[in-house]
Amino acid sequence: MRNCLVAQSGGPTAAINSSLAGVLEGAMTSGEFKTVYGALHGVQGLLNKEIINLSEKVNEIEGFIENLKHTPAMYLGSCRFMLPDASEDSEIYEKVFSIFDENEIDAFFYIGGNDSMDTVAKLSSYAKENSIDVKVIGVPKTIDNDLYVTDHTPGYGSAAKFIATTLLEVGHDTSIYPIDSVTIVEIMGRDAGWLVGAAALARNKYNKAPHLIYFPEVPVVESEFIADVKDAIAKYHNVVIATSEGIKNPDGEYISSTKAAEDKFAHSQLSGAAKVLEYMIKENIEVKVRSVEVNIPQRTASHLQSLTDIEESFDEGAFAVTLALDGHTGEMVTIKRVSDEPYITHLSSTDVNDAAGLVKHVPREWINDRGNDVTEDFIKYAKPLIEGETSINYKDGIPDYLDISHLEQ
Amino acid sequence: MRNCLVAQSGGPTAAINSSLAGVLEGAMTSGEFKTVYGALHGVQGLLNKEIINLSEKVNEIEGFIENLKHTPAMYLGSCRFMLPDASEDSEIYEKVFSIFDENEIDAFFYIGGNDSMDTVAKLSSYAKENSIDVKVIGVPKTIDNDLYVTDHTPGYGSAAKFIATTLLEVGHDTSIYPIDSVTIVEIMGRDAGWLVGAAALARNKYNKAPHLIYFPEVPVVESEFIADVKDAIAKYHNVVIATSEGIKNPDGEYISSTKAAEDKFAHSQLSGAAKVLEYMIKENIEVKVRSVEVNIPQRTASHLQSLTDIEESFDEGAFAVTLALDGHTGEMVTIKRVSDEPYITHLSSTDVNDAAGLVKHVPREWINDRGNDVTEDFIKYAKPLIEGETSINYKDGIPDYLDISHLEQ
Repeated sequence: MRNCLVAQSGGPTAAINSSLAGVLEGAMTSGEFKTVYGALHGVQGLLNKEIINLSEKVNEIEGFIENLKHTPAMYLGSCRFMLPDASEDSEIYEKVFSIFDENEIDAFFYIGGNDSMDTVAKLSSYAKENSIDVKVIGVPKTIDNDLYVTDHTPGYGSAAKFIATTLLEVGHDTSIYPIDSVTIVEIMGRDAGWLVGAAALARNKYNKAPHLIYFPEVPVVESEFIADVKDAIAKYHNVVIATSEGIKNPDGEYISSTKAAEDKFAHSQLSGAAKVLEYMIKENIEVKVRSVEVNIPQRTASHLQSLTDIEESFDEGAFAVTLALDGHTGEMVTIKRVSDEPYITHLSSTDVNDAAGLVKHVPREWINDRGNDVTEDFIKYAKPLIEGETSINYKDGIPDYLDISHLEQ
Repeated sequence: MRNCLVAQSGGPTAAINSSLAGVLEGAMTSGEFKTVYGALHGVQGLLNKEIINLSEKVNEIEGFIENLKHTPAMYLGSCRFMLPDASEDSEIYEKVFSIFDENEIDAFFYIGGNDSMDTVAKLSSYAKENSIDVKVIGVPKTIDNDLYVTDHTPGYGSAAKFIATTLLEVGHDTSIYPIDSVTIVEIMGRDAGWLVGAAALARNKYNKAPHLIYFPEVPVVESEFIADVKDAIAKYHNVVIATSEGIKNPDGEYISSTKAAEDKFAHSQLSGAAKVLEYMIKENIEVKVRSVEVNIPQRTASHLQSLTDIEESFDEGAFAVTLALDGHTGEMVTIKRVSDEPYITHLSSTDVNDAAGLVKHVPREWINDRGNDVTEDFIKYAKPLIEGETSINYKDGIPDYLDISHLEQ
């Protein structure tokens, strides 16, 4: 093969650059490519020919690949861009492949979530149909962990580790006063409860927080919620609740955007799920209550990565290169789990069409009957994914991440 | 001396247990005390005779002192409790000193913020006036860094390091899309801007976030704010704003609790400073805008402590013991800075009345003329305080902090 190209897309994670590092290391050590290029801002930037030479970066910047593994968000930048169908707009496809041709690209690696896998599917189909010999391989990433076929997704483990650690620390914070209190912690995951479920990993021999967990998968009934909070206060005094941003009422509406919540809060953008639960409690129970949104840090806190996640993300990137070199295209790298304990996995791949465009929910049987906690099966599944810590360098008291000034507009 | 007693009070920090560890280590290695006791829940718990034997913990739990240095919030629990004046209620003082007498306490160390220093002042005065030979020494802590006399306070450096790291990571997060955006990050510090100023420590050779910083010390004028945000968008495209929760309007009202904000947000508890700024921007500028409250993690994220802070906090605890053994009472431990670079300090002490009940603001000349950034003097002051990292143990993927089940109600 001549050259290869890699790009990133979708929302940030603490591990997506580790997959980029894996592609880079895999491609360079294979000896099969002259140059590894990176497109800035995903397919959108590719169309503007925003292309940088990554092989050069490796040669010029000391420790580039190692530091890349620990740098948050996208080193190459990102985009939110869905390719139209080739039948509707073939010009855009011609443009992509002419840019590939110009740069002698024989393999394209796209690291991203659902939308990016759709792009992989479309580009690889177009290449096949037009007898263009460019291999297109997808490397998944999403903190949401909601992709099918693969056991889990790169980025999830690090987000889960940050969430579990934060919940443990919030547990310490709430335990200090001899009064009753409720602290609600809102966690990302609009459609699937994988992230909020990871809050349960904060529990250890002394910490029982979070005492209640609410999922997008199970409707929250206000009367049951209030009863459960009252019980928890009676039992634990300082109660910590983990809620997904995507919890719904029995009518299937997001609790954060119901008419009732909008009326109460005047502006729907203010009424996050935690705020609505806070309000429900204030209306029904005399207790100190506050809420915390974990927000952006849960997806970019590279100072607290899961070593398991970072190593797997790297390996998936390198495996994508192997797939392309073995003649595969239109596939997504997957992880297959052999056992939970000891934790054993191997890498595989799937037709990207089997994974794109679907949302994998937490199985109902991994959530308890009452819908307010995970079961032991969830814990067994998630615990290995947050294991291990990475070691990062600091300079002047803050992490010494890679310079991303090439992304300046 | 016979025995000594230590207690903690006020809000949590990531370093207050390191001061406790310092008291414990100092008292035990001095050989001057039979037993070191701890009162749970500060003076409030002391009055209920909630006393535990800390010397026993050190002997029974392997690595107790080392792990204590890295455990967030209060190992001994806390309280919000102001002692009445002895002239108004002498009974409570008689009770405290009879409990001291019962337990053969010759020295009492109180680790906490402003209210706790008030308690130190009152108890030591009462002892002197009544010729009771119990030494009372205060060890300061507050993430707010707003105590007089001391150069800075234990807990501030770790909070500042977490804030700076989070702002750097948010900077990476916001840089990935080739669009304009504004991200507002709300930071604690109702009355003083030390914490929000620390956001500036996120800047390095490539990261310019936060691009604007707003302080409780300088009124925010809406028209100037909007103009500054527009300029920053034109220049940087992805703008990050750090705001103190305690910013005020030119009338001196908290922006988060003005009538206008309450009308707009229906419930004043919803309208944090960042949300109000978000709303101002949405009304005036066509741009993607969102806000993030760093919230509880900035004061309890012991997984990311400043080594400087943890070592100083420990040393201050040990120094408090030396002061008591040298016959001092009614004093608070202080840090005096000799130079910024190299960073050199030494420990000292002050009459606790000189520090209690006052708020130390960021000097106006450490904030720029426009009131939207720190000056180089602030950076020189704050940077050494976030230097260095601690190493903590993890178990099952989360920090292996000390068991705090003795705080269960």
